[in-house]
Amino acid sequence: MKRVYYQGEKGSFSERAARRFFGPSVPAAGLFNFADVFEKVGGQPGAFGVIPIENTLTGSIHQNYDLLLKHNLWITGEVKLRISFNLFTRSGSRVRDLKEIWSHPVALEQCQRFLARRPNSRLMPVYDSAGAARILIRERRKDVGIIAGPQVGKLYDLRTVAKKIEDNPQNYTRFLILGREKNAAAGPNVKTSLVFGVKNAPGILFRCLSVFALRNIDLVKLESRPIIGKPWEYLFYIDFHGNLTEEKYRNAVDSLNDVAAYSKILGCYREKRNN
Amino acid sequence: MKRVYYQGEKGSFSERAARRFFGPSVPAAGLFNFADVFEKVGGQPGAFGVIPIENTLTGSIHQNYDLLLKHNLWITGEVKLRISFNLFTRSGSRVRDLKEIWSHPVALEQCQRFLARRPNSRLMPVYDSAGAARILIRERRKDVGIIAGPQVGKLYDLRTVAKKIEDNPQNYTRFLILGREKNAAAGPNVKTSLVFGVKNAPGILFRCLSVFALRNIDLVKLESRPIIGKPWEYLFYIDFHGNLTEEKYRNAVDSLNDVAAYSKILGCYREKRNN
Repeated sequence: MKRVYYQGEKGSFSERAARRFFGPSVPAAGLFNFADVFEKVGGQPGAFGVIPIENTLTGSIHQNYDLLLKHNLWITGEVKLRISFNLFTRSGSRVRDLKEIWSHPVALEQCQRFLARRPNSRLMPVYDSAGAARILIRERRKDVGIIAGPQVGKLYDLRTVAKKIEDNPQNYTRFLILGREKNAAAGPNVKTSLVFGVKNAPGILFRCLSVFALRNIDLVKLESRPIIGKPWEYLFYIDFHGNLTEEKYRNAVDSLNDVAAYSKILGCYREKRNN
Repeated sequence: MKRVYYQGEKGSFSERAARRFFGPSVPAAGLFNFADVFEKVGGQPGAFGVIPIENTLTGSIHQNYDLLLKHNLWITGEVKLRISFNLFTRSGSRVRDLKEIWSHPVALEQCQRFLARRPNSRLMPVYDSAGAARILIRERRKDVGIIAGPQVGKLYDLRTVAKKIEDNPQNYTRFLILGREKNAAAGPNVKTSLVFGVKNAPGILFRCLSVFALRNIDLVKLESRPIIGKPWEYLFYIDFHGNLTEEKYRNAVDSLNDVAAYSKILGCYREKRNN
């Protein structure tokens, strides 16, 4: 049976991404950390995972790049979500009575301009904004506000005090869908993700990238990560437009194997072009 | 007068890097966050800054890449420090009585194997390990241990309970020295750091890297960061072996300017080859 795992509480953006991809009624469960998601998906037939991989303001979620390398899963799709924050209270609270505002540190950082106008409310970083909403309700706090995604207000029946309070509206997170079956997607608009490592030598990264450039293959992402245990050596994660069912793209990857010290395909999946 | 700023408390690895580079008796002050360091150095003649830029286990400190772009400073040198952690207590404490262990979340993460053997001590993430040592002394806590760099024990006269408790000894942090004067370093073993942005087009990153590869210039680091406000576009930060006082390297940078949409030299400084 299909079952979807994500990191965080009900109401998190990861849950929202899961429902966007698999539909609103798919059985879905939030887990404590990203590594738990990878382990569940790896160990359970029919399980899928949803993990954030990059945000347009804060960059890549490196821990998930490292986990993609460590675990033997397959990227089967992606979701791009617009990230927006609201300020919520319990019904009956007054904004001027708010002594504290609780939220995830990243959310607090992304709403700095809004918060600067409310210097009397103490900011409290919490592990999870949706989880903070649950505590707010349970403890019947009238003096606390929560910053979280719009879906959290509905879930906990909170009052929306202010909408879209983030500093920068160009705020999107890209999520990857993880599964166990290693099948290339069919059809057009397919993207391939892979990781490769190089031995340190002048021009080596250039030679690796040439296998794509010579074939006019469009790289859409390149990310470097340190190789643990080998100081100052790096792995490179790349995404390119192209489907491994086509010979040109398979040839590029075969050529990469001649140049790189190590490479691994992470997935070949339908791309979301619009946000 | 020369004055050095770093982020964190006295006893932090950043302070240690500052003293390694400028000598033990240089006037040095710890500031609250990285942005403060950039602002102090920019606003004060004779001021230098010391910031961590990458760690061999956890990767780049992206906030500092973003600050390098935003501020108009110059990288004038680098320091590579071996990162090692000890467990400290107040003198007279017994290890078996430790109810809590305090440290920075990254330090706790890097000492997981050691901590797994002490399941009875609750782990408490703190903002700054050296600052935690100060609280330990002030509050005379006998039931608390601290994980911090070896220099912290000496500074606060703590008892060293266990040495080198980190999981992975290949743990180094590279620090950059920041100043206001934009002078290329003299002599051999010089490294140049720059950032460039590209308009999205197939093969564009390859073309940018070709200006270095064609001249056999050795790239030692490539790091991508999102461009804020332009979803799914990226800036690339690179380091290469070479001195801008030599024509070959100046030509490479001039050629880069013909291909990239944007570029900025961040520094040209003596490289630390050994750790």
